[in-house]
Amino acid sequence: MNELEIGAAKRAREAYGLDDIAVVPSRRTRDPEDVSLEWSIDAFSFGMPVVAAPMDSVMSPATAIALGQLGGLGVLNLEGLWTRYEDADSVFADIAAVPEDEATSLLQRLYQEPIKPELITARLDEIRQAGVPVAGALSPQRTQEFSDVVISAGVDLFVIRGTTVSAEHVSSNREPLNLKEFIYQLDVPVIVGGAASYTAALHLMRTGAAGVLVGFGGGASSTTRLTLGIHAPMVTAISDVAAARRDYLDESGGRYVHVIADGGLGSSGNIVAALASGADAVMLGSTLARASEAPGAGWHWGPEAHHARLPRGNRVQVGVAGTLEEVLLGPAHHADGRTNLMGALRHSMATCGYTELKEFQKVDVVLTKR
Amino acid sequence: MNELEIGAAKRAREAYGLDDIAVVPSRRTRDPEDVSLEWSIDAFSFGMPVVAAPMDSVMSPATAIALGQLGGLGVLNLEGLWTRYEDADSVFADIAAVPEDEATSLLQRLYQEPIKPELITARLDEIRQAGVPVAGALSPQRTQEFSDVVISAGVDLFVIRGTTVSAEHVSSNREPLNLKEFIYQLDVPVIVGGAASYTAALHLMRTGAAGVLVGFGGGASSTTRLTLGIHAPMVTAISDVAAARRDYLDESGGRYVHVIADGGLGSSGNIVAALASGADAVMLGSTLARASEAPGAGWHWGPEAHHARLPRGNRVQVGVAGTLEEVLLGPAHHADGRTNLMGALRHSMATCGYTELKEFQKVDVVLTKR
Amino acid sequence: MNELEIGAAKRAREAYGLDDIAVVPSRRTRDPEDVSLEWSIDAFSFGMPVVAAPMDSVMSPATAIALGQLGGLGVLNLEGLWTRYEDADSVFADIAAVPEDEATSLLQRLYQEPIKPELITARLDEIRQAGVPVAGALSPQRTQEFSDVVISAGVDLFVIRGTTVSAEHVSSNREPLNLKEFIYQLDVPVIVGGAASYTAALHLMRTGAAGVLVGFGGGASSTTRLTLGIHAPMVTAISDVAAARRDYLDESGGRYVHVIADGGLGSSGNIVAALASGADAVMLGSTLARASEAPGAGWHWGPEAHHARLPRGNRVQVGVAGTLEEVLLGPAHHADGRTNLMGALRHSMATCGYTELKEFQKVDVVLTKR
Amino acid sequence: MNELEIGAAKRAREAYGLDDIAVVPSRRTRDPEDVSLEWSIDAFSFGMPVVAAPMDSVMSPATAIALGQLGGLGVLNLEGLWTRYEDADSVFADIAAVPEDEATSLLQRLYQEPIKPELITARLDEIRQAGVPVAGALSPQRTQEFSDVVISAGVDLFVIRGTTVSAEHVSSNREPLNLKEFIYQLDVPVIVGGAASYTAALHLMRTGAAGVLVGFGGGASSTTRLTLGIHAPMVTAISDVAAARRDYLDESGGRYVHVIADGGLGSSGNIVAALASGADAVMLGSTLARASEAPGAGWHWGPEAHHARLPRGNRVQVGVAGTLEEVLLGPAHHADGRTNLMGALRHSMATCGYTELKEFQKVDVVLTKR
Repeated sequence: MNELEIGAAKRAREAYGLDDIAVVPSRRTRDPEDVSLEWSIDAFSFGMPVVAAPMDSVMSPATAIALGQLGGLGVLNLEGLWTRYEDADSVFADIAAVPEDEATSLLQRLYQEPIKPELITARLDEIRQAGVPVAGALSPQRTQEFSDVVISAGVDLFVIRGTTVSAEHVSSNREPLNLKEFIYQLDVPVIVGGAASYTAALHLMRTGAAGVLVGFGGGASSTTRLTLGIHAPMVTAISDVAAARRDYLDESGGRYVHVIADGGLGSSGNIVAALASGADAVMLGSTLARASEAPGAGWHWGPEAHHARLPRGNRVQVGVAGTLEEVLLGPAHHADGRTNLMGALRHSMATCGYTELKEFQKVDVVLTKR
Repeated sequence: MNELEIGAAKRAREAYGLDDIAVVPSRRTRDPEDVSLEWSIDAFSFGMPVVAAPMDSVMSPATAIALGQLGGLGVLNLEGLWTRYEDADSVFADIAAVPEDEATSLLQRLYQEPIKPELITARLDEIRQAGVPVAGALSPQRTQEFSDVVISAGVDLFVIRGTTVSAEHVSSNREPLNLKEFIYQLDVPVIVGGAASYTAALHLMRTGAAGVLVGFGGGASSTTRLTLGIHAPMVTAISDVAAARRDYLDESGGRYVHVIADGGLGSSGNIVAALASGADAVMLGSTLARASEAPGAGWHWGPEAHHARLPRGNRVQVGVAGTLEEVLLGPAHHADGRTNLMGALRHSMATCGYTELKEFQKVDVVLTKR
Repeated sequence: MNELEIGAAKRAREAYGLDDIAVVPSRRTRDPEDVSLEWSIDAFSFGMPVVAAPMDSVMSPATAIALGQLGGLGVLNLEGLWTRYEDADSVFADIAAVPEDEATSLLQRLYQEPIKPELITARLDEIRQAGVPVAGALSPQRTQEFSDVVISAGVDLFVIRGTTVSAEHVSSNREPLNLKEFIYQLDVPVIVGGAASYTAALHLMRTGAAGVLVGFGGGASSTTRLTLGIHAPMVTAISDVAAARRDYLDESGGRYVHVIADGGLGSSGNIVAALASGADAVMLGSTLARASEAPGAGWHWGPEAHHARLPRGNRVQVGVAGTLEEVLLGPAHHADGRTNLMGALRHSMATCGYTELKEFQKVDVVLTKR
Repeated sequence: MNELEIGAAKRAREAYGLDDIAVVPSRRTRDPEDVSLEWSIDAFSFGMPVVAAPMDSVMSPATAIALGQLGGLGVLNLEGLWTRYEDADSVFADIAAVPEDEATSLLQRLYQEPIKPELITARLDEIRQAGVPVAGALSPQRTQEFSDVVISAGVDLFVIRGTTVSAEHVSSNREPLNLKEFIYQLDVPVIVGGAASYTAALHLMRTGAAGVLVGFGGGASSTTRLTLGIHAPMVTAISDVAAARRDYLDESGGRYVHVIADGGLGSSGNIVAALASGADAVMLGSTLARASEAPGAGWHWGPEAHHARLPRGNRVQVGVAGTLEEVLLGPAHHADGRTNLMGALRHSMATCGYTELKEFQKVDVVLTKR
């Protein structure tokens, strides 16, 4: 486990991030055209292993549709600006215009507007009309309050996403969400997280989740480590959760729970590293926020950025790299790992001799940063 | 012990700092409201595990009172500007105004003014009037000279703080302070340090100290490593001293000596890391110097900065992050780990499933910097 | 093998780059004049272990000749600008003039011009007239299409170079190049790569190659790691391939296949490190692009920079360090490791007590970057 | 030995530099006034363990005298500007005035002026008149040519200093200096180096040298690593040579050869680290070049900077930190480790509980840079 004594009374494990590793080709190469990026979860099949992060700067109803049409899974944040404001566009314009130093205060203020159940229904309807898979996300704190609205509105996949989500939340003031019961009663598959350890993930798998999000707050807009001292380098986290997937597969007699890397995937090279570490798919935030269609208009922020008393993230400028199609499928006109993400993944797999994502989890990797 | 041969005739131990580790949540989470930050030392209870560093840029009589009222422990430097100058305010204004290059010379000059016993009495009186715990600090070199004045003035806690304080100071010119005798004769509990190794701390514990300060000169304004080649990365130092605490608890038949991390705590994430490494409380310098009430007015320096022949620290600009209350209890309007330190600690503990500081010392940590 | 568990379900090997190591002199020193830099491959002998990278910014027919006359091996890119454009000079001028942000698009456009077989013949003829060894390079994808032209034009050495070349390319759409057959039927020695692992290299050696290029896309102009997540630190790669050379020498009953380090050789110190790691010779790109005669005119780019949909490299400014002779043989007027590369190698070998390149592969090295 | 496999066919040892370690105080502290910095070599005693680097920017006859009067050992470069030019001052002024880009060319030109034996005699005479120990340095290449002049002029200590000096130099063109014979025939003690490994140092000790210089070209003005790929991190080098000192002491039946750290000592903290690693004394270059009396006038360069064909160092700007006395003995008015070097050493030793340099070699150190 590479555990070290870091002091006479404490041990720690060495953990590795996506930039610490690289994949290494071996004796066989293949044609990129022979590579399949097909990914299936529950009854749904996708042309690429890409789930959008349910963040306001990334997903509007329109971009959720566009992503679905390109072969990925769009997920709308159901407690964000789209369900708080009828006219969300002007709110986005305000956020894009505010100076650096006042950004957090503005976000704190804008997110005090109450969530409107009828907007949840309307936004999900809009996506369904387009004929793509419908997915929405709530935080664990809001799931009980709004899940009924979401279920009646109808979703194909339900995402419960927080910085850290555990199967066992203990509270003295209120009855916490019982994940196991909740998922059991639900008709639709649930993706839940973040988690970052073997044990935490195993318990989430036992709740009946179809997928587990790996990572907590390691993304471009997050300051979780600086503020909370919490950090889980992605390679180690993904691999640990992949070990839980393997063990739960055995324990459950065959239930395969998908491992979805969520956070810190800033380049196509990072996506390659996440899949090579054992992920089945990736949840993309800043990477998709760089699409010209993204509602953030070149800016990106997460839900932890607008906490009223303890913001743990910033609005960051990510710029525009190209259209959503260019970002995901190319063509690329810059060699910076920000466009044609899937082309790069396909090329990397072919160079390493792999044609299937599941097989690629076994690719050789090296630790390169000293 | 992770000891390595660093050359054919020398071995060294790997040591880790606060930025090298992060805490990792596991399978259980809790509500931040269920977390207690209560900390007790000797007969005194505090609402937060925070002791102010007795540095002139941090503590005035007024900020000592304010910190006490917020639930922490203010400690006045009894050989600083407040006990050398009746009108300290104008001196602080001079320091804030001097150009970078002349700062050290000015500090060297200003601290040549003699310490006035009557000012020690007056400053401590002012704090006592406010009804908060009264604590003052002297260096080991000055303790013999001024302790009588301090004791008659009356303090609830006495702090002896130097870059490095040992239980066994050897001198050929003068009778050094016999810590064990001194503490034995004293009525009030004594906090003493810095120390950074198991052995040094164990010997300090045996003098009867109530608390040991861990660290020597690793703070924001210090250049101890550059000038003296001395450095003790905090995680390893805290954990080693925590091991001494455990062994001394056994040896003494139950005396629990508090381990207080002192130095290098620049963000709420660092505070989390220090407590996770085994500290019972933290002594904060630069972090509190960023409060709008702090006497340094955005500048920060330590006692080693004004040494007449060998200054080992600088006046550094730390800026203003908010009121003392905002710094400690929020609300935060920036996500930089500099405000709502206690809210962040509470949130981090809850996310990791802990409700008590003592238990949190067992939280899982990872080594993350390669 | 320094393999570590980087997560509960994944292991990785630590790999080291050229800047991670340094050579260490020992008890004997020698005169630089006593050092021989002679290098032979197949029937060809060279005065220095230097092969030019077949990149358009590095090699024109004229610089191939100049390098040959100085004692190295020039290699012309046979699918580059020189074989696509009759008047290549004006194309180079356009590339040098384009602004940063449009460089990739311009390269993508310029390289759409078809390759002209008659220009392959003409360019190789020009080199042969000068009486130096003639070498040309094709990518594995183009080798079948153009090898006949190249062979009839006549080359002394044939180079097959791609980012990653394997002995076993699998394709469902077209019959891939059968390297073993191809090399067997060819009259001239073949240098092939890049490869970066023991197994990949061993299989390339078994195809009958005279030399193997080590590395894939680690050069100054490459973004392989950022875009594809692929990276093979050179020291480990060279040493692994050197182990394959040793084992193949035994397996084949005496065939010595040369290991040529290709990529990331930015200074004379890096060249020393590559040879110390086990390389027989080095293939130089950016280093030679800095010669005043280089066609790139201070700019440098690789073949991966103009991929139509997935560029994986940039045009980078390398500047001009001196004439080709100054770059290779001095005199140097700057101490930056960019001129008098061979003088530096000679001096380094002498200082470490070696006079032959083959022996120098055994020199002591230290790992220095923590 | 911390040897790692860095590839399938190569092993390397991890080596550590002065900035990688720090000393750690333990249970005892002392008064700085009780610390002795006395250092003796052969029949000579010094008040501080400081030898000046024989570099033109550091040592003039005047600064050699000044250093001797302060208690250190001045060493004049006998093949530098002072022995090539009668009026050296104007040459130094030219060097200080030349723009960055032309500095190397100017140094190459200026050092082509022949060395004048009569100037060697005159410069050494000037030092002797002042009543301080007289020491001069030659490179191994020049030692045979000029040693007679030096000996007749008269020196108390003779220094043979090159980037790498071995006991066994092999040359096919000329009879190399036989160090053992040379030292045997000489009446004065010889300090020789640089060396950086156990074996190289042991062989130098067997030649009869009184001291060995450790390090080769790791100083502020050197680019040895960039140009030659040669580097020996100082902590490991010093400790290895200290092991040779210990073994040679036994082998020789009691000859104690001094280990003098030479290079990379940029701050008082670095000096502490060098002595803690096992050095008996330090040879200072850039650190003393910062004295206002230094001939370099704020600039610093080494002998490798003016090599006619392969310069391996630069003229670098080091600025002026204070008078030579302030640099060595204080008082300091900046906390940057550049003034009061000996005060800092004294203070560091006292804090760690040591009063003698020889004992301080045993101080506990930690590896701190990850």
